[in-house]
Amino acid sequence: MKIHDQYRERVNSCLDSFLGSIPSSPNSDIELRDVMKYSVLAGGKRFRPILTYTVASLYDSEIEKADSCASAIELIHIYSLIHDDLPAMDNDDIRHNQLSNHKVFGEAQAILAGDGLQALAFSLISNDPLINADTKIKLLELMAKSSYAMAEGQSIDLSVVSKKVDLNILNKMHQKKTGALLNCSIKFGALLHNASENDLSILESFASHLGLAYQIQDDVLDVTTSDEVLGKRQNSDAVKNKPSYPSIIGLNESIKTFENLYQNAQEELSHLSVDCGPLSLLTTRLMNRSY
Amino acid sequence: MKIHDQYRERVNSCLDSFLGSIPSSPNSDIELRDVMKYSVLAGGKRFRPILTYTVASLYDSEIEKADSCASAIELIHIYSLIHDDLPAMDNDDIRHNQLSNHKVFGEAQAILAGDGLQALAFSLISNDPLINADTKIKLLELMAKSSYAMAEGQSIDLSVVSKKVDLNILNKMHQKKTGALLNCSIKFGALLHNASENDLSILESFASHLGLAYQIQDDVLDVTTSDEVLGKRQNSDAVKNKPSYPSIIGLNESIKTFENLYQNAQEELSHLSVDCGPLSLLTTRLMNRSY
Repeated sequence: MKIHDQYRERVNSCLDSFLGSIPSSPNSDIELRDVMKYSVLAGGKRFRPILTYTVASLYDSEIEKADSCASAIELIHIYSLIHDDLPAMDNDDIRHNQLSNHKVFGEAQAILAGDGLQALAFSLISNDPLINADTKIKLLELMAKSSYAMAEGQSIDLSVVSKKVDLNILNKMHQKKTGALLNCSIKFGALLHNASENDLSILESFASHLGLAYQIQDDVLDVTTSDEVLGKRQNSDAVKNKPSYPSIIGLNESIKTFENLYQNAQEELSHLSVDCGPLSLLTTRLMNRSY
Repeated sequence: MKIHDQYRERVNSCLDSFLGSIPSSPNSDIELRDVMKYSVLAGGKRFRPILTYTVASLYDSEIEKADSCASAIELIHIYSLIHDDLPAMDNDDIRHNQLSNHKVFGEAQAILAGDGLQALAFSLISNDPLINADTKIKLLELMAKSSYAMAEGQSIDLSVVSKKVDLNILNKMHQKKTGALLNCSIKFGALLHNASENDLSILESFASHLGLAYQIQDDVLDVTTSDEVLGKRQNSDAVKNKPSYPSIIGLNESIKTFENLYQNAQEELSHLSVDCGPLSLLTTRLMNRSY
């Protein structure tokens, strides 16, 4: 099994056992635990946990230490998907090839599932017995900041629907909406093992190139890939009148831009104090992804 | 100025300066910062911060150390009010004598404001330079657990609307929905100053009596107080077909029950290792509150 598949299976099993450990609420028709499970265990690429595990592996082979961070970052990501899919937000009824959370459990429970998942992400890291208190504080501080930036990015995103925006605004919006959490996933792996300030700043720059590349690529795939492969509706940006890279600079220019950004990201990695092989491999695979 | 008014002014000023420190997002029509400010600075009793300051004052006179906890717990409370007021939830259009957040900014921004406030609460404590890392972890662990319990309590609350429930279920629901956060406010004050396990367990029991008393009293006030004084619609439980203590055990029995619970709470306090005067005074004032 390839290493990224191993990481995916590992975080799936951590998430499954973590959610399984939440006590049931008797006497309720709907249990919040089950509402959360529906979305968390629906699959997905687990891109953020894979980033955390991969970066952590550059510094140390003790993979268990990265479990709570990998799981927490995925809980934050899933909470944001549940809320983004709500009728008041992006109004998407399909996610990961199944009905969106609110389509199954109703809007109220979907809002609460997102709220609950955000709280649980902080629980997971603050309760991890393998990480010392000083490191935990750095991780929690970064996750809180990134989670806030994500909400702010989504707020900006909603306020620019149907508007003419330039590339600069689009970049800034994505830097918050998706970039902040990717940056968090990447730096988690380094903070866990007390990486140097120099490595952290290289990874910060790597994350910013990778995050933007990933987003532009998402916009391109939204135009070029079928619903079934994406696991959500195709062409959703255009249908919703959302500004996207292809709509501003065209499809070919968008492809060229994200490929350049991935190459910049690759080049940064060679300056790390550790062997960057596994992270470089992951970056190449991302550049060539088809969904 | 009475001590509780001083605490209220103190937390108001901390919240104001904290939200003021969040950078603006240029190019947006609506700024998430302003959406949050609208609800956070709308006033309110600041009951939870007052509890934190009061308990902290039993152990130490250094009040600055409690600022981040007092502010964070209020941010969690306000986030929950914004989400609870949404049409998909309790559908309330008035809160603190002004329009609810979603009535002014729309549902999407209101959901994001709640999401952002939860993240900021964790930022506030994890960034506080006055608290050491070990203590911060205890505070963050408790806040994450309490915030999750609150979401779960609201989930149970929504699933029992229009249903016949017994006192036992109602107690359990309130223990999560409002009790968990009150317990957190109270224990924050003690954890900040390394209180003994014995004191923490006395405060836990005090919090559980106080929390239930406060909730039953809320149900009673919902029936007996005017909209203007409450700052929200009167008789809202009955209109929404929500089970309440007066609807199950009657008004007089409800009053007797909450008074007894406050008295139990008072008695617990005498066993603390420190002078419980200020907390005892606060409890008496709560018992006699009219809104």
